[in-house]
Amino acid sequence: MTAAAAKPPISLADLAIQFGCELIGDPDATVTHVATLSDAGAGALSFLANPRYGDFLATSAATAVIVRPSDAATDGPSNRLVHADPYATYAAMAQHLYPGPALRAGVHASAYVDSTASVDPSAEVGPGVVIGAGAAVGANCRIGANCVIGDGASLGANSALSPNVTLADSVVLGMRCRVQSGAVIGSDGFGFAPTSDGWRRVPQVGSVQIGDDVDIGANTTIDRGAIGDTVIGDDVKLDNLVQIAHNVRIGAHTAMAAQCGIAGSTVIGERCLFAGHSGAVGHVTICDGVIVNGKTMVTKDITKPGAYGAALPAMPISDYRRVVARIRQLDKLAARVAALVKHREKSS
Amino acid sequence: MTAAAAKPPISLADLAIQFGCELIGDPDATVTHVATLSDAGAGALSFLANPRYGDFLATSAATAVIVRPSDAATDGPSNRLVHADPYATYAAMAQHLYPGPALRAGVHASAYVDSTASVDPSAEVGPGVVIGAGAAVGANCRIGANCVIGDGASLGANSALSPNVTLADSVVLGMRCRVQSGAVIGSDGFGFAPTSDGWRRVPQVGSVQIGDDVDIGANTTIDRGAIGDTVIGDDVKLDNLVQIAHNVRIGAHTAMAAQCGIAGSTVIGERCLFAGHSGAVGHVTICDGVIVNGKTMVTKDITKPGAYGAALPAMPISDYRRVVARIRQLDKLAARVAALVKHREKSS
Amino acid sequence: MTAAAAKPPISLADLAIQFGCELIGDPDATVTHVATLSDAGAGALSFLANPRYGDFLATSAATAVIVRPSDAATDGPSNRLVHADPYATYAAMAQHLYPGPALRAGVHASAYVDSTASVDPSAEVGPGVVIGAGAAVGANCRIGANCVIGDGASLGANSALSPNVTLADSVVLGMRCRVQSGAVIGSDGFGFAPTSDGWRRVPQVGSVQIGDDVDIGANTTIDRGAIGDTVIGDDVKLDNLVQIAHNVRIGAHTAMAAQCGIAGSTVIGERCLFAGHSGAVGHVTICDGVIVNGKTMVTKDITKPGAYGAALPAMPISDYRRVVARIRQLDKLAARVAALVKHREKSS
Repeated sequence: MTAAAAKPPISLADLAIQFGCELIGDPDATVTHVATLSDAGAGALSFLANPRYGDFLATSAATAVIVRPSDAATDGPSNRLVHADPYATYAAMAQHLYPGPALRAGVHASAYVDSTASVDPSAEVGPGVVIGAGAAVGANCRIGANCVIGDGASLGANSALSPNVTLADSVVLGMRCRVQSGAVIGSDGFGFAPTSDGWRRVPQVGSVQIGDDVDIGANTTIDRGAIGDTVIGDDVKLDNLVQIAHNVRIGAHTAMAAQCGIAGSTVIGERCLFAGHSGAVGHVTICDGVIVNGKTMVTKDITKPGAYGAALPAMPISDYRRVVARIRQLDKLAARVAALVKHREKSS
Repeated sequence: MTAAAAKPPISLADLAIQFGCELIGDPDATVTHVATLSDAGAGALSFLANPRYGDFLATSAATAVIVRPSDAATDGPSNRLVHADPYATYAAMAQHLYPGPALRAGVHASAYVDSTASVDPSAEVGPGVVIGAGAAVGANCRIGANCVIGDGASLGANSALSPNVTLADSVVLGMRCRVQSGAVIGSDGFGFAPTSDGWRRVPQVGSVQIGDDVDIGANTTIDRGAIGDTVIGDDVKLDNLVQIAHNVRIGAHTAMAAQCGIAGSTVIGERCLFAGHSGAVGHVTICDGVIVNGKTMVTKDITKPGAYGAALPAMPISDYRRVVARIRQLDKLAARVAALVKHREKSS
Repeated sequence: MTAAAAKPPISLADLAIQFGCELIGDPDATVTHVATLSDAGAGALSFLANPRYGDFLATSAATAVIVRPSDAATDGPSNRLVHADPYATYAAMAQHLYPGPALRAGVHASAYVDSTASVDPSAEVGPGVVIGAGAAVGANCRIGANCVIGDGASLGANSALSPNVTLADSVVLGMRCRVQSGAVIGSDGFGFAPTSDGWRRVPQVGSVQIGDDVDIGANTTIDRGAIGDTVIGDDVKLDNLVQIAHNVRIGAHTAMAAQCGIAGSTVIGERCLFAGHSGAVGHVTICDGVIVNGKTMVTKDITKPGAYGAALPAMPISDYRRVVARIRQLDKLAARVAALVKHREKSS
């Protein structure tokens, strides 16, 4: 069961030329699909990038394997496509083999497009889609079923929304972006002023500006700015269920794994990596090149690139309980040590 | 205000026979609905399973209470349905009393079903639903309003999607599954190869295979496999806002509470329990019968069943600040202790 | 790019009178929009509430600035609207300047409204909306595109659902509530009884009762009660991706930041604040006025108002690794200290 049927067979010679690999083996052999080393059979193109899977190479039945030069001659399938970066090369070849379904240009009869919206004739607008006043959908965009695009929102050329995405009013999405189902871009930021009578809503009058080549995961939420915009840089990659609060700014090429949360007005540099369930409090600045470990919360500015962590790893429950008890007693332990030091100083 | 009206009154004699209980009290008394011990009145069926609520039995006004044999004679309502497992018995009786709305077989006029899709005539397809090419909806399925079912996706018999669910292309859902609103199954996995120019998208050409009797919570996301499928075993229960990454495999009967996150290619055994906000990093294997505490991150393989924890419990802020300071000073404390030990050894 | 165009210019004299400020400067000067101190230009209304941004006042080009009395005479724009609470005053003025788009009363032709539902003629029902049997939509409500309102659900007057919201059967929403896109209210609670054959579903026959002036964030989920209702008090504010489990009760004016999770049957008091990624286990009670820090899990009853924390802050990875190692060795460290104490006692 695959997402998309592969294209006609392609020869290893063609692959090697098109993707800049050295070819070892039969130039006329053809591949039709991709597979992992262990699942591969005839016609499969596979790759070895993570040394963890090195053992699977020797017994793989793949027709061809993309490998590093250092793996060119190890045991395994005789056809090798040799490249310094097998994973990126695999990605490019897989894009070629699986181009995705062709665009069906035009607006589905069940979609509702406001008369003042502009939809490029090359774009595909699926069933049940709603496009608001003054919105703009660029060339070759694909708008999945039941998406809602608000008034004045716009999508650059070659962007794609999976079904059930919401783009709120005035949100700007760049070119070649891909938004997975259920994502919400441009929801109101969480802004309420405390008063003696309770909360008073602070209108969120900014919007969201999203660069080019941005990927946004399923059910991820990006709030519009309170004043001024929330800004997502080019080539940012956000996984599923990520929360980006109002007026956050994220630098180019930064990636965040699932369930990260970035609180309001925090500024994140370029090429940062956030692991799952991590995040940052509001109003902090994180420089370029920062890696944040899983479940770690950044609580103040980070000015030095490098990795940061905080979460304890899972322990068997008896160890865990003892650790928690010990931590709670650290005051007592420190006091005992202080008393010992004092005693030694007196007695020496 | 209840989700569904109860059926006609049923006698305690009938309940006892149908659900294998010993009946103490009036066989002709009837119940019409369920209620907690404290809220119950005439016509209410209640139960006592959690000893925490034992005090409410004596004063309950329920018409009948499901209890363990050990609670058969304690103070309280005179009608008792006695069973070794009151909670599971309650669940079965409640299913009987609240069968849910009857299926309205047929496709709503406002739904769009591709001409190559197959929808069983007994299935209910709600307003605004979109069903793609080659998709298959089994007997007695209920597809809630505005759901989107992608090309080639399929649902086994007696499965139900609440409104606004997205099933992406080629996803396979088993029989008797229930998917809550906003869930997204089959979104692209988070796969990008780093290059000197930024990220290169890795096509996610696998799909998602979901077994029978699986429950999936609201706004939960399950990504399709990168190569090969993401696999959810029979009788798996996922709460709301859970993230299951590409190529994860989850064994039968495992349950995860809200906001858990499992990173890519991790394999989880059968009958595991994950508490809220917990999760696992990618590429680890967790054996059967593991319990993961709330907010705990599994960072390496677990090969022994049992409970695992990591998160510190909430402390008053002054304690918390002291604990954090003490933890940051552990190096110094250890150095002081080492110096004391050294001094003692020298002086003895 | 803003969410909504501002109204016609308003004079500072009018603002001062309408919102109870002292005016310093030109009563005839007019503002047309809001801006931050640093981005403001001619026609902009700005404010200074957070001392963090005080430095921007001197050089701001705003036409007028809302300030505290203590900031009335500092360097900066000559027009000042002076009020003890600049942020709340800003919120009120911004609501006035940005009233949001006017309601377009009526049901869109592409919406499906069950013949037994009642929709107030003043309400706006957008394209693709589905409203079930017996549902009720109050005066001046706005129902965004592709929302689904279940059978018997109701919305009080002046409430608004952004696009793609799901209100399940029988959910009750109060007046002046605002629900952001993708939120799901009334999904089934996570209730399954363990049996020797696996999980047995426990029907969730309660509903959700939501008070007045409640805000619910994008992709937030609120489950219906198992027996009896989940209850959200007046003026509660929930950010995005929050999870509220079955039978939780939340007191008035409590606010929760993104990705909080509250497990089943927990009761939370009034005027509590939960920071991002925090939460509580099930069946605990938290009193009024509790503040829970980010990523902190409440594991037992809290009976004293005040702040609570648990999560370690992010540390550079080398510090983090050392801290984890030290924590794992706390048993040994404590044993060494105990030995030293014992030795000292023997030798003294």
